[in-house]
Amino acid sequence: MSIQIENDVSTIDSTKEDSINNLFGLTSEVETEIKFCIKNNHKKRLLFLFDLLHPADQADMLERLSKDQLNNCLRLLSKRLDPETLVYLEDTVQEDVIKGIGPNAIAKALPELNTDDEVEILENLQEDQRDTIIKKLPKADRILVEEAFTYPENSAGRLMQREFLSFPEFWTVGQTIDHMRNKEFVEDENFYSIFIIDPGQRLLGVLSVSKLLSNKRSIRLKDIMNNNFQSVDVEIDQEEIALLFQQYALVDLAVTDKANRIIGVIIFDDIVDVINEEAEEDFFGLGGVSDGSIRTSIYKTLKDRFSWLSVNLVTAIIASMVIGLFQQEIEKIVALAVLMPIVASMGGNAGTQTVTVAVRALATRQLSYINLQRFVLRESWVGMFNGVLFAIFSSILAFLWFNDFQIAIIMSASMIINLLFAGILGTLIPLSLYKFKIDPAISSTVLLTTATDVIGFFTFLGLAAWVIL
Amino acid sequence: MSIQIENDVSTIDSTKEDSINNLFGLTSEVETEIKFCIKNNHKKRLLFLFDLLHPADQADMLERLSKDQLNNCLRLLSKRLDPETLVYLEDTVQEDVIKGIGPNAIAKALPELNTDDEVEILENLQEDQRDTIIKKLPKADRILVEEAFTYPENSAGRLMQREFLSFPEFWTVGQTIDHMRNKEFVEDENFYSIFIIDPGQRLLGVLSVSKLLSNKRSIRLKDIMNNNFQSVDVEIDQEEIALLFQQYALVDLAVTDKANRIIGVIIFDDIVDVINEEAEEDFFGLGGVSDGSIRTSIYKTLKDRFSWLSVNLVTAIIASMVIGLFQQEIEKIVALAVLMPIVASMGGNAGTQTVTVAVRALATRQLSYINLQRFVLRESWVGMFNGVLFAIFSSILAFLWFNDFQIAIIMSASMIINLLFAGILGTLIPLSLYKFKIDPAISSTVLLTTATDVIGFFTFLGLAAWVIL
Repeated sequence: MSIQIENDVSTIDSTKEDSINNLFGLTSEVETEIKFCIKNNHKKRLLFLFDLLHPADQADMLERLSKDQLNNCLRLLSKRLDPETLVYLEDTVQEDVIKGIGPNAIAKALPELNTDDEVEILENLQEDQRDTIIKKLPKADRILVEEAFTYPENSAGRLMQREFLSFPEFWTVGQTIDHMRNKEFVEDENFYSIFIIDPGQRLLGVLSVSKLLSNKRSIRLKDIMNNNFQSVDVEIDQEEIALLFQQYALVDLAVTDKANRIIGVIIFDDIVDVINEEAEEDFFGLGGVSDGSIRTSIYKTLKDRFSWLSVNLVTAIIASMVIGLFQQEIEKIVALAVLMPIVASMGGNAGTQTVTVAVRALATRQLSYINLQRFVLRESWVGMFNGVLFAIFSSILAFLWFNDFQIAIIMSASMIINLLFAGILGTLIPLSLYKFKIDPAISSTVLLTTATDVIGFFTFLGLAAWVIL
Repeated sequence: MSIQIENDVSTIDSTKEDSINNLFGLTSEVETEIKFCIKNNHKKRLLFLFDLLHPADQADMLERLSKDQLNNCLRLLSKRLDPETLVYLEDTVQEDVIKGIGPNAIAKALPELNTDDEVEILENLQEDQRDTIIKKLPKADRILVEEAFTYPENSAGRLMQREFLSFPEFWTVGQTIDHMRNKEFVEDENFYSIFIIDPGQRLLGVLSVSKLLSNKRSIRLKDIMNNNFQSVDVEIDQEEIALLFQQYALVDLAVTDKANRIIGVIIFDDIVDVINEEAEEDFFGLGGVSDGSIRTSIYKTLKDRFSWLSVNLVTAIIASMVIGLFQQEIEKIVALAVLMPIVASMGGNAGTQTVTVAVRALATRQLSYINLQRFVLRESWVGMFNGVLFAIFSSILAFLWFNDFQIAIIMSASMIINLLFAGILGTLIPLSLYKFKIDPAISSTVLLTTATDVIGFFTFLGLAAWVIL
């Protein structure tokens, strides 16, 4: 079994025309037809259709198949899967596809990719499966891949590709272009910068390909290179790198070792994935899930959700225990039981608003110790102002509903207190977690809502016990 | 007052060395020193420090000033602000900076930028302020900018830059490179693709600059161009464009009019901003805020939070009214009031988990009518399984706490029902909103938690009324 590369498909038929005009290459017609071919073992037609798709769309297609369909499809396609397709696959499906294709064919396919893609695919595999494949790689690839795995997870060393173009500073534009015309890897590759180095491989400057193109052949690289550039150490974390790409709108970034020698380059498209991942993590964290894929198995999903809901059960019990302290009062004035969820719920929602803003500001590094005080103050003011406003509404409500002036007063006092605390704790909880290096996106909301429930129930029922009874 | 461009600063002093070694150019030392210069009117030193900063860091610096500091700083800097800095500024601060600089200087500065950046800056202004500046623009720029404003907001027409390189298909590589060496705009610009057109400006193919570089001078563009490329219509929405960039890892994308003539190009860095914005919108939506900037004024923040909390007040009242139906029962068995928030809270959290996954899957187009049924089924199973598990825990809890077998049974039954509904509604609510073109990220959670509160209270208290009393 072998895998061939299928780049630049130039056959265009009516199906393909459709897919170009369409925003996305994989239309539901193509999908239906491919599923039909798989079911009926129409190998030739299947190969033809797959060839027409961009690797990204091939990956989408594979993701939409059931396990049986996938295995049948891989069997029919076996000799023709584009290695690029592997890169675009979602983790869970990637594993199935790699299992279906087998380690020999994978080890043959991987060297067609850049090192960063090779490493990314291998990272997702089980350790024994990964080692089997690495052992089968050609020596040159094996060394680079093994080296990448010596760097920390999520570091520049794992993200970088080892393929880049570097030239001595005394070369001219003309020499450089002529050299590039003869270099084999340049042809298939998109690259955006060339790097200027000294004889010890140390990075001296960076030059965009567009600037190279727009200068005369006789000019030396050192006279046009940018020597005021950014580069990162090989062990820097991807989150920092993503912020750097966004801050300076970078298209690529050199990776250097401790001696400032260039050893790789990170390209923007890998960083777009990182940005998405980080944003997704925060989003899922806020919603209380850790694995948000809709393709995860029911069992894994159940486990993930269960552990989060268990934490929530504990916090709900704590809130209930607060209510339990005031059973006598509730028995006497049942209106308290009716109104108490309003106080707790408003506090929880107001606090969640503040947490949301704080978590995002921390993730984008907009919140720091410098503007901290101002932020906490602002949120406290907003909490108190809103507290006063909603105190008015809810006391009117309480009065109209139960015709009891005292309850109305208690309602409004506890509303102000709870919303004020929601504002203060909504900032302090994520900031403290951040300081202790716990991801604020994941744990802030549950801590906060526990706090606002406890404070809400306690002030409302406690005030009632004190004032009325 | 005029604005000069300060590109490629080559003066490097100790401060700058620090900022290169540092991941971010703007260290707290530089920040402190700049604030000191502003306070003491050290104009020369301030200019020197600002010059050392990348426009992105200059923007960060301006964002960290109070209004008074900002105005003083602009006065001191007036003749030297890099127009690029405007592009990097956050909306609220951008407005202040533009007011501080004045329309004449802005109208002089904008033409230094690409059209996409000009349009982005003008978009954020009040209409009358915008019109004043547009009227003062040089004619060539004015026409392009006015045209951009005829396209829908958030469409390709607003995002694209009008500066791009296009060549006839019969040109050779050598001819093209020679032409580019003579073209003025090429020098300052990073560009990644050239576009091949017919005599009617219709797009025939795309060629990456790296591929252009790696081919011999005698080869014709039409023989190496990629004619199987993506392009978008000028009216396509930015969300679709962002998905396209991510799907195919694009660096740029041609924008065409109805006659397939190329009229502009969209570059990846603008799309990174769009991806961030969209992710942020969903994140803030889930947390119940619409403006999540930490720099928004207290008044605006208050208004934003208030409107959301008002919605929440209404839903909390609805939940309370359900409790109100069962006042007699609570009066008799006060344990009901203690335990009822647990049922409601577990339902709300389980449902929010499902909503989170659904909202993200909808935003990334992973969820469609094809795999819809499977997703709803999966979530219902997960809801029911977790319902059974937590029914066991909470009934044990209820029994141990209140030593009442009937309450334990009621607790477990209502837990199962509420978690099952949470799973089903957690999928159906965002899907229905999406179908009716209402942003599911914003409204799903509030609808869902209202539903789970109502169902939770109603089943728990209702069962109690029916069984016990």
